[in-house]
Amino acid sequence: MTQVFVATSAVEPVQKNIKLGLAQYGGNLLRRLLDQAGLDAPDALYVSNMLADELQGQKHLGALIASGAGLRGIEAYQVRAAMASGAMALRNAYLAVKSGEVRTAVALGLEIMQPGDATAAMAKALDATSEIPEGLTMIGINARLFAAYLDKYKIKHSSFANFARNAHHNGIAAPHALFKQEFSREQIINSRVIEAPIRLMDCAPICDGAAAMIFTSDVSLCTGTPVELLASEIATDILTVSKRSNPLSLDASRLSAQKAFKRSGLRPVDIDFFELHDAFSIMACLSLEACGFAEPGKGWQMAEDGVIFREGDLPIATFGGLKSRGHPIGATALYQAHEIVCQLRGEAGDCQIRQDIRTGMMQSIGGAGTTLATNIFKKV
Amino acid sequence: MTQVFVATSAVEPVQKNIKLGLAQYGGNLLRRLLDQAGLDAPDALYVSNMLADELQGQKHLGALIASGAGLRGIEAYQVRAAMASGAMALRNAYLAVKSGEVRTAVALGLEIMQPGDATAAMAKALDATSEIPEGLTMIGINARLFAAYLDKYKIKHSSFANFARNAHHNGIAAPHALFKQEFSREQIINSRVIEAPIRLMDCAPICDGAAAMIFTSDVSLCTGTPVELLASEIATDILTVSKRSNPLSLDASRLSAQKAFKRSGLRPVDIDFFELHDAFSIMACLSLEACGFAEPGKGWQMAEDGVIFREGDLPIATFGGLKSRGHPIGATALYQAHEIVCQLRGEAGDCQIRQDIRTGMMQSIGGAGTTLATNIFKKV
Repeated sequence: MTQVFVATSAVEPVQKNIKLGLAQYGGNLLRRLLDQAGLDAPDALYVSNMLADELQGQKHLGALIASGAGLRGIEAYQVRAAMASGAMALRNAYLAVKSGEVRTAVALGLEIMQPGDATAAMAKALDATSEIPEGLTMIGINARLFAAYLDKYKIKHSSFANFARNAHHNGIAAPHALFKQEFSREQIINSRVIEAPIRLMDCAPICDGAAAMIFTSDVSLCTGTPVELLASEIATDILTVSKRSNPLSLDASRLSAQKAFKRSGLRPVDIDFFELHDAFSIMACLSLEACGFAEPGKGWQMAEDGVIFREGDLPIATFGGLKSRGHPIGATALYQAHEIVCQLRGEAGDCQIRQDIRTGMMQSIGGAGTTLATNIFKKV
Repeated sequence: MTQVFVATSAVEPVQKNIKLGLAQYGGNLLRRLLDQAGLDAPDALYVSNMLADELQGQKHLGALIASGAGLRGIEAYQVRAAMASGAMALRNAYLAVKSGEVRTAVALGLEIMQPGDATAAMAKALDATSEIPEGLTMIGINARLFAAYLDKYKIKHSSFANFARNAHHNGIAAPHALFKQEFSREQIINSRVIEAPIRLMDCAPICDGAAAMIFTSDVSLCTGTPVELLASEIATDILTVSKRSNPLSLDASRLSAQKAFKRSGLRPVDIDFFELHDAFSIMACLSLEACGFAEPGKGWQMAEDGVIFREGDLPIATFGGLKSRGHPIGATALYQAHEIVCQLRGEAGDCQIRQDIRTGMMQSIGGAGTTLATNIFKKV
């Protein structure tokens, strides 16, 4: 049975308004990643990106990034599922290595969220025949879910404050995080309303980033403590949110997590930390519930009680999460994966959680709970 | 060693200006495909499409098509490499089945090339920082290659006429082909100049289509004579055509074919027919040369001599090819794969070439020779 190991990974600092083109930005990172691994070229390159069609006018990203790194001839193509695109690159690299036909596969995510209207392009993750004509955006649909949650469980918005507080606290120590600033509970609760009940501090920022990881069946290629990708599982839900019987149950999240638990032979209690998809604080809460870490209606309690803090029982957003490290869409899952591997190798610096950890889980969400990916990594 | 078999396949007739949305168009086809196979749901769905971002305002095609077919929870995402996108879906399904983790994988390609400017969206297959600002389109870049070829080898445009003649002749008998019309050599040679030296009859049409195939490791799921996907190989070239040392050598075509020959243990002489990517007649010619079926500068001779005809030694475009069956971008490779399987199963009707065939090869081209995929199928 072929095992899938992480050879090495690399990230660019998340920034606003970088001035590089896609080929140079992704190509430089890929070159650096290959140098780290001591490889001339990978067998395959799977690129994740969501917005280049509109924002950079570019639809051929596999060959573009390979060319940018000066590579000739390799297998290269693009994979995607809206905001979960980066996790599709992980899945693809996992399948390729697992197949036995690819010895080294790079998953590389990148997103330059300017110039142009990133919000309008991101809305195309929704149903173009019903939701978009209604004027819905990603913020709008998350606002509806958030309002429904607060109403159903009679919770106050302030009960979610620790999601942002924890993320920003952790981000300060993360070398590649966009924001390096502590926020008080009061600042978070009183931040500007974006679309009620969502406030500014409930949302991940628009930013640019690139991150990449090499997967291999050859454990001798690992540049540090070997880490295995034990499970990489994807599930989808009905695209149109209003057609789901219970949008708050995040069925695809539960399903992809269940498949990943089954594949890895682990249970929720075996997971040492969880890099979840906190693009909106409501999504962080719903993921915790769907994955079995909290009862329905109780995800926020894990934030209130500090369970999610660096020193808690289930740390999340250990490098700042989408909220503070940043959410450069197609690259985000690769940042999550990189951070998990840093933690498992004990190379997380001031972001390091306790040293006796063995397993890290991550989840990526495309659309409003539409495409869900769960990946579980384990120290070998 | 896991083998990858074709369970079954299905196609929509290629048309102009269909009135369905993506979800219904792809969903209906997927439903029909699953019914054919006697399956409730596949384990995974890989969707290929190039233009929905711009033309339908939709960026979440995996979940969209799964939803359209009434499926809940399955793995689904989009893969692509410009005009070769359909072959990325084949590759993905192949890797997934080969990995041992996916028992049934659907590769589904669809493209609705209206409303809006399909030509401008397709140009994004080129380099957005150099080629597109120059005003280059896919036709423009192929015109440059065609002119360079005619000049280098001192060949007349009329020597290419049999590519279109053969395609249209074969398309007449293909139930799903867009065009059902014979064209004489004179009509082809004298057709309207689009961008010199390219004439109308050198170009595949803009049209709508959807095609899909189920791959499986379980040979008992095959609905007819079992056919194996022996090799699925991808290679890329420098994105910017002017930076290649010899753009006419189509290096990625040669490389992906060499990898596929090596993987399958076959040589060019073992291939019974070849569904190539005749989006432009120059590309048909260059592919024949790059794959080793003709010497450099001699690909057109295979058309002139009738080697490519249905009764020739290496039939191409046996259901009309991109030229006559049509080239609905993201779906095209799935049509090619369907046609190969029909031939190998002896189910090609009036398009059937000789009955003793055992192997069919296909090639898909993204951009101007940038991303190349070679797939080889064999009757078991």
